[in-house]
Amino acid sequence: MPYKAISGIGEFGLIDRIASLVEPTLQAAPGLLTGIGDDCAVYQPAEGLLQVATTDLLVDQIHFDLLTTPLKLLGSKAISVNVSDICAMNALPRYALVSIAVPSSFSVEMIEELYQGMSYAAKEYGLAIAGGDTSSSRSGLVISITMIGEVAPEQLTHRSGAKPGELLCVSGTLGGAAAGLKLLMREKEIMLEHIENNEPYTKSAMAELKEYREVIQRQLLPIARLDIVRLFHAKNVRPSSMIDISDGLSPDLQHICRRSNTGALIHESRIPIHPDTRRIADELQEDALTWALTGGEEYQLLFTIPKEEYQAISDEKEISVIGEITDTEEGILLSDIYGMSIDLTSLKGFDHFSS
Amino acid sequence: MPYKAISGIGEFGLIDRIASLVEPTLQAAPGLLTGIGDDCAVYQPAEGLLQVATTDLLVDQIHFDLLTTPLKLLGSKAISVNVSDICAMNALPRYALVSIAVPSSFSVEMIEELYQGMSYAAKEYGLAIAGGDTSSSRSGLVISITMIGEVAPEQLTHRSGAKPGELLCVSGTLGGAAAGLKLLMREKEIMLEHIENNEPYTKSAMAELKEYREVIQRQLLPIARLDIVRLFHAKNVRPSSMIDISDGLSPDLQHICRRSNTGALIHESRIPIHPDTRRIADELQEDALTWALTGGEEYQLLFTIPKEEYQAISDEKEISVIGEITDTEEGILLSDIYGMSIDLTSLKGFDHFSS
Repeated sequence: MPYKAISGIGEFGLIDRIASLVEPTLQAAPGLLTGIGDDCAVYQPAEGLLQVATTDLLVDQIHFDLLTTPLKLLGSKAISVNVSDICAMNALPRYALVSIAVPSSFSVEMIEELYQGMSYAAKEYGLAIAGGDTSSSRSGLVISITMIGEVAPEQLTHRSGAKPGELLCVSGTLGGAAAGLKLLMREKEIMLEHIENNEPYTKSAMAELKEYREVIQRQLLPIARLDIVRLFHAKNVRPSSMIDISDGLSPDLQHICRRSNTGALIHESRIPIHPDTRRIADELQEDALTWALTGGEEYQLLFTIPKEEYQAISDEKEISVIGEITDTEEGILLSDIYGMSIDLTSLKGFDHFSS
Repeated sequence: MPYKAISGIGEFGLIDRIASLVEPTLQAAPGLLTGIGDDCAVYQPAEGLLQVATTDLLVDQIHFDLLTTPLKLLGSKAISVNVSDICAMNALPRYALVSIAVPSSFSVEMIEELYQGMSYAAKEYGLAIAGGDTSSSRSGLVISITMIGEVAPEQLTHRSGAKPGELLCVSGTLGGAAAGLKLLMREKEIMLEHIENNEPYTKSAMAELKEYREVIQRQLLPIARLDIVRLFHAKNVRPSSMIDISDGLSPDLQHICRRSNTGALIHESRIPIHPDTRRIADELQEDALTWALTGGEEYQLLFTIPKEEYQAISDEKEISVIGEITDTEEGILLSDIYGMSIDLTSLKGFDHFSS
């Protein structure tokens, strides 16, 4: 067999190949409205009702590190990342199926901690854990969650509906998840050094982490913005396009622009950077803006909305207007605080298969 | 943290603990009719329509061995095992979400082979691959598939509806999947010996496998019995309980009896053993009946049906009556060809966490 490395085509190249391979199956399901290429698949089980479905596979050492991640928080996060995909379609989560493959080193209590976290999060979001699969694993822990949500046809939002002239908005603040991850990685190194030098790694060594509590929570215990979706429904507002920021603000904006066939302009001064992020970035001699633009796992909602519709939600402090949608030819640009334009397509986000 | 080994409570003990941990989430979803404990979760998205959902996680070295499993067949099997769970609810498969975690040693072509197999199987069953997730893996290949099916409320079948006096039936023949697995494991040993001794392992060394083609197909390329479900629908017949044989005839019969609160009696002489299985068992000095009773991954349907309803399908050669449902107190028994009773609860099937 000829050998073509996956790193040569990257994660999104691979997804394109997969989409074309499964395309012949789509005609079997006339109720399917959206296949691969958005945050969720969309299908119509009955007149007047749409369902959306998403799935996430979390693998030890790729998506999480048990050295720095308590199992309860991991369980909660695994639920939240799926709820976030449901929210990106402007839908409400209903049912989850949870599969785990467990290494033999795990105890019953460890599995229980994991499910306690999932169960807690599910209750908070108002969804039921309806089934799943359990098996053993020869390597690390694997968690796979599939979630099904519901939405009225007139409320469904895709990545593809953005139009030039519309406002570009984001929920919450950005950069915190990246800052939290950097701190946890630094802490892990300290921990491993202590172990290597046969020194105790005690709670006192961790004490200073307290002041970073908020950004570490952004990384370990993200909250999907179901509150924003409920606000849209309550105010009878529908974003013209939406995505959740899992890859990073810049790459996820590019997903919206690519699907909508538009450009975009965002203003550096408008990007809501998490208050602790700048301080931590300075401390670690890194750049808070880069974290806010390319840091993944934020689970905030990035959406577009016509100016006249925006009025209904303009009082909401958790929503910031960061720019506007432009014509494709104008590109996808960041206007920095000096008024210089930076081409966002040249900034890289995380790619699972990049070398 | 205290340490309780999972092997101490086994796979089904673990599932019971998980079910009680997620139980508090169920009240969030009034449309959910069945949670953990059957082949699928069941919920009602709209009046007159039920959906069923199932998920399977397949992990390298636990569920498959790439040394003996071509990727196309693995892709097809991954789809079939989920279709089989949908069939066990008497439902029709509609949509699948497919997630993979891929080791860096995999090429683009290998992923394409896997998806070609999935796409081929999906087309055969008439379902759409509607979405999924891709990521890298530090260890082996992981495949997670979730499938959603549909069924009219009056056709839905659970594990729990069996009643004393009803007939116990099975589709197809049994024992073939276990025979195929044994042959593949023997072949793998021969292959590894050749490699160790630096001898070529050529096609000629494999030639004799041809005569075992059928049972190897049962293991590598199982076909879910959607044809039997379609027959039920066409003949307007509804089994009173049903399960697909993934753990083995004996353990899966015990699932039906436990959920239905009944006993059962099956007759050895009635069990349809795959014709090649006896010959292969003799050759390997193993017991074909044990394979038929405890061999997993058969993906045949085991169901119960009132005698009067059975008349409508009695001409169907692919369905065998193997016994009947009895009262709980009578136990779950096999009557062997000498008329002796064997307690099936003392035979062990596969447990992911048994030590």
